[in-house]
Amino acid sequence: MEKDRSRTQQAILFASIRLFARHGYGRTSLAAIARAVGIQKPSIYNHYKGKDDILQDIFDFFLSTSQLPSEPEEMLSRRAAHCLHGTPASVTPATALLTELIEWYLHDTDDPLLSDAWIMLLSEQFLNNQAAQIVLQITEQFVEFFRVTFLWMHRQGMLPDISHPEQLGETFGYAIHGFHIEYILRRHHEMPSGEIRARMRSLAVQFGAGVDLVPDPAVS
Amino acid sequence: MEKDRSRTQQAILFASIRLFARHGYGRTSLAAIARAVGIQKPSIYNHYKGKDDILQDIFDFFLSTSQLPSEPEEMLSRRAAHCLHGTPASVTPATALLTELIEWYLHDTDDPLLSDAWIMLLSEQFLNNQAAQIVLQITEQFVEFFRVTFLWMHRQGMLPDISHPEQLGETFGYAIHGFHIEYILRRHHEMPSGEIRARMRSLAVQFGAGVDLVPDPAVS
Repeated sequence: MEKDRSRTQQAILFASIRLFARHGYGRTSLAAIARAVGIQKPSIYNHYKGKDDILQDIFDFFLSTSQLPSEPEEMLSRRAAHCLHGTPASVTPATALLTELIEWYLHDTDDPLLSDAWIMLLSEQFLNNQAAQIVLQITEQFVEFFRVTFLWMHRQGMLPDISHPEQLGETFGYAIHGFHIEYILRRHHEMPSGEIRARMRSLAVQFGAGVDLVPDPAVS
Repeated sequence: MEKDRSRTQQAILFASIRLFARHGYGRTSLAAIARAVGIQKPSIYNHYKGKDDILQDIFDFFLSTSQLPSEPEEMLSRRAAHCLHGTPASVTPATALLTELIEWYLHDTDDPLLSDAWIMLLSEQFLNNQAAQIVLQITEQFVEFFRVTFLWMHRQGMLPDISHPEQLGETFGYAIHGFHIEYILRRHHEMPSGEIRARMRSLAVQFGAGVDLVPDPAVS
């Protein structure tokens, strides 16, 4: 659950996320945070014990805002009903749904604050054990979400008849997660990121259609 | 090509890689580096202009040591001949080769210095544009290597007849790359990493056998 924060505390939290993502946790001073918020440095201590206390609050904030749906199946039915309406016949239902899920996920990434919080975590993951635990936990939740998605699509008859849809879902989830980090990295440095979006969409086609994974019946 | 470094210069380089990976570039001082090498701080200036100059040399070192084979096809033939000798019939040739390539790659990761250089790069990728370029370049080379591998296996008749083996190779490469970073992260924090190795091997089975990607002929 999102915890209550005063306006000033929230301003400190958000400014810290931005500064840590730009300059690194180790290279950002409390003075710089106070300057960004427009308060005196000692005022920070009314809200936080110090930089490490702000870091803890960023971890809480990130965990509470990047929750995947607790009832994925209900969400999948809703998304599927929405995206299949008006999908051209050349696109398989599974591809349409996977594409919709990727777009929904990237939409979250377009939130500069959440994106900066990810950057901060990824930059600290080797230096801070807790940051590593959170990165691994979020990755695991993400992969699990696609495992459930592939099982659900399989039960709905949206996938070709395969024996282990959950394995396919895990592979898809890990690949999308990897692309996602590269996407954040490129955007952060203002490098071209369109190709990464295209690769994600192409993965949705590949996994949703099974086209290239299935032997050509004309040949085999 | 690997450049020549004096013994002391190499000691400074290696100590810096270790310290940057443990404490971060921003939180490591020249004094700490000198202490680790067992020299006086001013002696560092006989070899490097400063911390940023050491960072540049780490980039050079990393790029020169993490080269994938320039003639992958020759290397693939050699590896295939080696690993197919004595492989049980239950394992497809493609799975045997992919497993061998993963083991060979992880063996490199077990080198503490190379692993620390990776950690340093990944920690700095959002703070330093050049670190980001190198991470993207190495990732691209890695994915390209598996694209070539899947094309080669396809030409050798080691894969079921699929129309876009290069796409399958890219997906495999990205997934393995993602697992690899998680593997380094877990080992760095002394968290269990056996499950990640098992997942990589399971990916080699999945992509090398096509078992779960191909419709069950008994059902379809």
